Amino acid sequence: MIIATGRRKRPNDFQLERSKIIGRENCPFCPGREDLTPPEILAFRQNGGAANGPGWELRVVPNKFPALQVEGTLDREGEGLFDRMNGIGAHEVVIETPDHQKTFGTMTEVEIERVLWAYRERVRDLKNDRRFRYILIFKNHGAPAGATLEHPHSQLIALPIVPDFVREEVDGARRHYQAKERCVFCDIIRQEVAAGRRVIHENAEVVALSPYAPRFPFETWLLPRSHGARFEEASRQQYEGLARMIKGVVTRMDRALESPSYNLIIHSEPFSEQATEFYHWHVELIPKLTRTAGFEWGTGLHINPTSPEEAAQALRSFGG
Amino acid sequence: MIIATGRRKRPNDFQLERSKIIGRENCPFCPGREDLTPPEILAFRQNGGAANGPGWELRVVPNKFPALQVEGTLDREGEGLFDRMNGIGAHEVVIETPDHQKTFGTMTEVEIERVLWAYRERVRDLKNDRRFRYILIFKNHGAPAGATLEHPHSQLIALPIVPDFVREEVDGARRHYQAKERCVFCDIIRQEVAAGRRVIHENAEVVALSPYAPRFPFETWLLPRSHGARFEEASRQQYEGLARMIKGVVTRMDRALESPSYNLIIHSEPFSEQATEFYHWHVELIPKLTRTAGFEWGTGLHINPTSPEEAAQALRSFGG
Repeated sequence: MIIATGRRKRPNDFQLERSKIIGRENCPFCPGREDLTPPEILAFRQNGGAANGPGWELRVVPNKFPALQVEGTLDREGEGLFDRMNGIGAHEVVIETPDHQKTFGTMTEVEIERVLWAYRERVRDLKNDRRFRYILIFKNHGAPAGATLEHPHSQLIALPIVPDFVREEVDGARRHYQAKERCVFCDIIRQEVAAGRRVIHENAEVVALSPYAPRFPFETWLLPRSHGARFEEASRQQYEGLARMIKGVVTRMDRALESPSYNLIIHSEPFSEQATEFYHWHVELIPKLTRTAGFEWGTGLHINPTSPEEAAQALRSFGG
Repeated sequence: MIIATGRRKRPNDFQLERSKIIGRENCPFCPGREDLTPPEILAFRQNGGAANGPGWELRVVPNKFPALQVEGTLDREGEGLFDRMNGIGAHEVVIETPDHQKTFGTMTEVEIERVLWAYRERVRDLKNDRRFRYILIFKNHGAPAGATLEHPHSQLIALPIVPDFVREEVDGARRHYQAKERCVFCDIIRQEVAAGRRVIHENAEVVALSPYAPRFPFETWLLPRSHGARFEEASRQQYEGLARMIKGVVTRMDRALESPSYNLIIHSEPFSEQATEFYHWHVELIPKLTRTAGFEWGTGLHINPTSPEEAAQALRSFGG
């Protein structure tokens, strides 16, 4: 658990994030309002222009209300039965485009690919900081999916630990490799492409499929065909293929599910693991269609009202 | 993952549970509408009256759109890389009161205690079915917390497996017991009551506290003072004390957090475990104040903007 009281605007403001989302009027990410964000860490300015002024195609800035603080050393201490460490990390925001209204459905493939290159560049820089063991790259689109700003943006959070879900996925992949000397994700791609029933769309680089046991209706995995453990070491062709696939799948979801809110999450090898042979980076795309409630919080299980075969079939039918 | 396509109203109705909640007009749980639910499994009728007619104080009925089916034998099969089992289980609804408007804040302590006795009676009956290894008892209050009906109700889901979160909690308690020969929950009660900073309220039977590492702001644990592994084996005094504590804590949350939506979850020993010495049943009460988004789904970590000390302090200050 990360306790981050600085994320509240006022000390007694306990009622958080209800359905408020910051729209165009007060948008700190629109061009001309660069002074409303902390100074930029990275920007793409094909046609020039000064830092922290307009003219950019993409900007990366520190999160103004970070979940974790960059400054300080990593301290661990006990309190009776309990253990704590201070909240060291980095929390950055990728402002994906100057256009407030665009989405991964309406952006061009080139624009989406630019976002992927920004992720790559930031990860390559942040991993030089030896305090960090994992960097989560994610995008919350729409208020129901947790976005607090409308303007298209993604986030990077660098963590001093390997989080539980990542550890479980890596451990599962390790067990499969120890038993069979094959990458489980490569095996899944092979089996699913052969069977076809859960495949949504394919291109030369990436396969989109409904996973066998989806937690959420229309949960979708985008898997690069060729094996690689780390997102930031992918090839130009893979970024191109992934950008094309993201646009294609989001467009299908927009048609099939009335432009749903969604979370997009990149899964990549932790820096502190030796998982290169058996871990396989990929992207998860989860439209927000159901609510997580008492059953899910009590069990860790999810009740999914849509089978993966139905979801894949529906998304196939809404293709180009 | 539980795939339960029967929970959708129509095959192509993929946009689920947005903000729709069934109110008084179409309420199937109000007296006089007993024919809108499946026949009752249990009812309390102090003043008599026929089954499946009005005159009840509390009814238990099968869920009309169950996540799992009672009929059938438990089958396990493989599909290439994957494993599946069929969805055997039970899914029941406790209609807590005939009064559509009541809540755990406005019900009397006697009315809440009656709900606890109904939970107990149903668990004692369901555990005779040897296919079941765990029964989750939970309540979703309010649409943001996942309720689809307004009328006060709780749910029981009997499962043929021990779910992950329960297994992790039991295993953690086992490790503590193996190292120290003490129940970790008894240790937490002792340490927290002595320190006081995270205690919300105490009565003779139950202690309410903000846990040391809460996943959610104002997450609250209600712990019986005396050790016991199973909710359904608690004493009359413990049910009385728990009913009083539930009313007290929900009332404080109603005042401090503007009548929030919440999930209430009972944690109890799985039937298939030998955990009596080290597991300690308890109740978790989680007001729905934040959204679960990409970071949480990508890591299993939660960003909590409110420290447990602040939450306990706020709830203490809103006491009677």
